[in-house]
Amino acid sequence: MKKIGVLGTGEVGRTIATKLVELGYEVKMGSRTANNENAGQWAKQNGEKATTGTFSEAVQFGEIIFNCTKGEATMSVFQQAGLDFFDGKIIVDQSNSLDLSNGFPPTLLPQYINTTSLGEEIQKMLPKAYVVKTLNTVNCELMTNPEKSSGEATMLLCGNNAEAKQEVTEILQQFGWKDILDLGEIVASRGMEMFITTWVRLFTATNNINVSFKINR
Amino acid sequence: MKKIGVLGTGEVGRTIATKLVELGYEVKMGSRTANNENAGQWAKQNGEKATTGTFSEAVQFGEIIFNCTKGEATMSVFQQAGLDFFDGKIIVDQSNSLDLSNGFPPTLLPQYINTTSLGEEIQKMLPKAYVVKTLNTVNCELMTNPEKSSGEATMLLCGNNAEAKQEVTEILQQFGWKDILDLGEIVASRGMEMFITTWVRLFTATNNINVSFKINR
Repeated sequence: MKKIGVLGTGEVGRTIATKLVELGYEVKMGSRTANNENAGQWAKQNGEKATTGTFSEAVQFGEIIFNCTKGEATMSVFQQAGLDFFDGKIIVDQSNSLDLSNGFPPTLLPQYINTTSLGEEIQKMLPKAYVVKTLNTVNCELMTNPEKSSGEATMLLCGNNAEAKQEVTEILQQFGWKDILDLGEIVASRGMEMFITTWVRLFTATNNINVSFKINR
Repeated sequence: MKKIGVLGTGEVGRTIATKLVELGYEVKMGSRTANNENAGQWAKQNGEKATTGTFSEAVQFGEIIFNCTKGEATMSVFQQAGLDFFDGKIIVDQSNSLDLSNGFPPTLLPQYINTTSLGEEIQKMLPKAYVVKTLNTVNCELMTNPEKSSGEATMLLCGNNAEAKQEVTEILQQFGWKDILDLGEIVASRGMEMFITTWVRLFTATNNINVSFKINR
């Protein structure tokens, strides 16, 4: 099984990292400082396959890197980790470019919208890595527990490299996803990232944090 | 039954107007010039309840106005029709702010994105009208034939006025929509309009023009 680096110690990072360890993967959770409290607690609770380190150590450790940082921080986290360490690796990019600075409803960071997206900017910054956008369209509980959706949910993904998408698809299947739809190249992350704007309204309208969508086709 | 004005003589306008006549509504289709060819042909095929006129005549005629113009033209069409004629009326806004000028994939017109939307800008321009955004998330065949979706589809709507949304919901039900979800105030049209970006990818990925989504909640 490939080694995995998880960037980010928030709810998304801990949810993903915990599930991956449960599935048998060795996981290193990366954070800004080596002694991050969230990460340390997570490692203590998840046995010897769960370790922690700096962002850079997590990227060096992993063959597949899950980006669970906030969109506003992603580019600087990657720079801090060291861009060369991503070469040849798969990056599962779950980020959304939410701008919460103006209250509700949140908008998207203007530098990552319409004619580009976070997914595309990451791919541009890391041309030798394989960025696969996915998992950014559901609440974090659903990411690793899609059966908690009230009806079958569809997980979207996109990216420029078919093999990388296949590997990520297999991990999504291990998470429990049965209906996975490939939207094509990384440019499709534009729409996937803009979906957060609708997700916020869906959550508000339904009061169901596990709201999801099924694509009929 | 309320009289209806339909703005736009393209595929969307003709589809909507035809269905409304079938349902028994009197419909006036409005266009830039009173002798528009599409509109004339449509009226000829649809009996005495189907009439044509200028944008202004269609708005004056209708108690409910369907905006089936292209997003890039919407604001100027409304101005041409005469803003005062919209007062007190329901506007069913189906527009998307697609910018096709740079080829594929299309982007959205930057003046209607992220911190605003076409739906909101129409409501701002027409404060005494009741804008309800809906029907912009599916292909035009599905708008009036939701049963052509391979699985049950959800139609979203939003707007600031509850009574207007109720009236539009009843028309959507007459169109055949069974699962209708109110996303709240007109601000929700931001996400609904950005969805076209994902729709384009869904269509490309599935090669199904009647691709749709069901919201699980």
